[in-house]
Amino acid sequence: MKFVSFEIDGSASYGIQQDDGIHDLGPVFAAQAPDLKTLIACGLLDQAMAHVRGRAAQLRAGDVKLLPVIPNPEKIICVGLNYGEHVRETGREVTESPTLFLRVASSQIAHDEALVRPAESAKLDYEGEIAVIIGRGGRRIAAADAWSHIAGYACYNDGSVRDWQTSTSQWTAGKNFWRTGAFGPWMTSAHDIPPGHVMTLVTRLNGQEMQRTTTDKMIHDIPSQIAYVSTFVPLAPGDVIVTGTPGGVGAKRNPPVFMKHGDVVEVEVDAIGVLRNTVCDESRLTEA
Amino acid sequence: MKFVSFEIDGSASYGIQQDDGIHDLGPVFAAQAPDLKTLIACGLLDQAMAHVRGRAAQLRAGDVKLLPVIPNPEKIICVGLNYGEHVRETGREVTESPTLFLRVASSQIAHDEALVRPAESAKLDYEGEIAVIIGRGGRRIAAADAWSHIAGYACYNDGSVRDWQTSTSQWTAGKNFWRTGAFGPWMTSAHDIPPGHVMTLVTRLNGQEMQRTTTDKMIHDIPSQIAYVSTFVPLAPGDVIVTGTPGGVGAKRNPPVFMKHGDVVEVEVDAIGVLRNTVCDESRLTEA
Repeated sequence: MKFVSFEIDGSASYGIQQDDGIHDLGPVFAAQAPDLKTLIACGLLDQAMAHVRGRAAQLRAGDVKLLPVIPNPEKIICVGLNYGEHVRETGREVTESPTLFLRVASSQIAHDEALVRPAESAKLDYEGEIAVIIGRGGRRIAAADAWSHIAGYACYNDGSVRDWQTSTSQWTAGKNFWRTGAFGPWMTSAHDIPPGHVMTLVTRLNGQEMQRTTTDKMIHDIPSQIAYVSTFVPLAPGDVIVTGTPGGVGAKRNPPVFMKHGDVVEVEVDAIGVLRNTVCDESRLTEA
Repeated sequence: MKFVSFEIDGSASYGIQQDDGIHDLGPVFAAQAPDLKTLIACGLLDQAMAHVRGRAAQLRAGDVKLLPVIPNPEKIICVGLNYGEHVRETGREVTESPTLFLRVASSQIAHDEALVRPAESAKLDYEGEIAVIIGRGGRRIAAADAWSHIAGYACYNDGSVRDWQTSTSQWTAGKNFWRTGAFGPWMTSAHDIPPGHVMTLVTRLNGQEMQRTTTDKMIHDIPSQIAYVSTFVPLAPGDVIVTGTPGGVGAKRNPPVFMKHGDVVEVEVDAIGVLRNTVCDESRLTEA
């Protein structure tokens, strides 16, 4: 099933997206879980899925404004240089350990929200990725056990401001511009995507395919990422691991391609769905 | 005045540390602020200071267990390579922009808590620093206005696992080991440290001075850091900017010095106080 976080009438809630609309779970689990992260932490995903089976949705998709899948993760850990084609196009080398950087939650946006191009740069680039959402936390999780720690998966667009990313050795600034990390549209439950299932990841810019890969091409596979990260820091429910982008980023094309106002960028994962965002110059943003 | 976060009888609270003990502010501001971050966000620091003036403290320092000054910051932004001597000892170059990396809150510890040496590495190093705690948030804060956005200052020990820090181009893993970032003992209010006041920062290992600098030697001064960070992401009340370590880190000494079980490491800032932690091998930790 597909778990969503959303806003309705100015209040945040969460639920399950089905063909006929959205089941609002906020009122159902109000006593235990104010948000999807807490629902996961309380181990209530199965109960939530059981609750909606056979019931009609109360909300139409158009009634709500989606939020990033987990609006308030404790940690967002991103894996860089995790597909050979991307490592080659950047001129870097494969490393034994995964290359990690962090995002802050306030850099995120939801499906259909504006992906903001800041006034400070004309080098806004896409990076289609698959996000893993941690279900059961832990420290020093063995790779063999890692699948059982996953709550689900979502699409992620790790929007990157390239000149700010590479102005020093550390990528932090260019990876954390306000409203550049798109996370959505929903979390597809790990029940629907068996361990090791090979997913296909495609990024399109204005309908044109820019990136395509399959998850079996990852240099550090998902269990290895979970094992590595949890070696140094405990993983918590709702933590997000963004698992890397394949070759074809805009900055490394000849000539380079950067996103501009009005561009539509889509990240599609066959097992999950399509995350779609329109680029908006910050100066032209009309919403709050 | 000195603001502390602490635990008493298993519950978290916060207050003001004075000569005769700690004023517990948790009950006073229970309706508005469950924690120090929220007290700051609500603009209640002045009111809190007014409340304790002339009143005796209710708690003795020994009654409470200190927590990291802000246990739950939205963001912890660390500035690397911000003193010339440290840039030179690392063999890197001065960059026009500050070099930034992020810490997650769960990597932090309080004054007097064990600084944990993980089983995975023998290369645990100290980095004495000054932490700035944001009072008023904002985006694109001008350097000229930056001082007015600061709530206060604390000592910080940016404990670093050097082999994990440098195993890839990005420092994330080595900068985020569980219980390696010491943050305390308290936040000295910005009222007590005028804008531009030159602070002296000293790090001692087992009583021996290892690092010494003054804040006028920063390459990117505090207002520039606030201006730079807030260009890409909105700063929020309680956010922490860790402003860089001077020369003298253990890894760059000849021979190198790494911390081991039982070592006592102190970070002293003349205008703030002394942050003291004892290194403990993770295998010998007895607490939870």
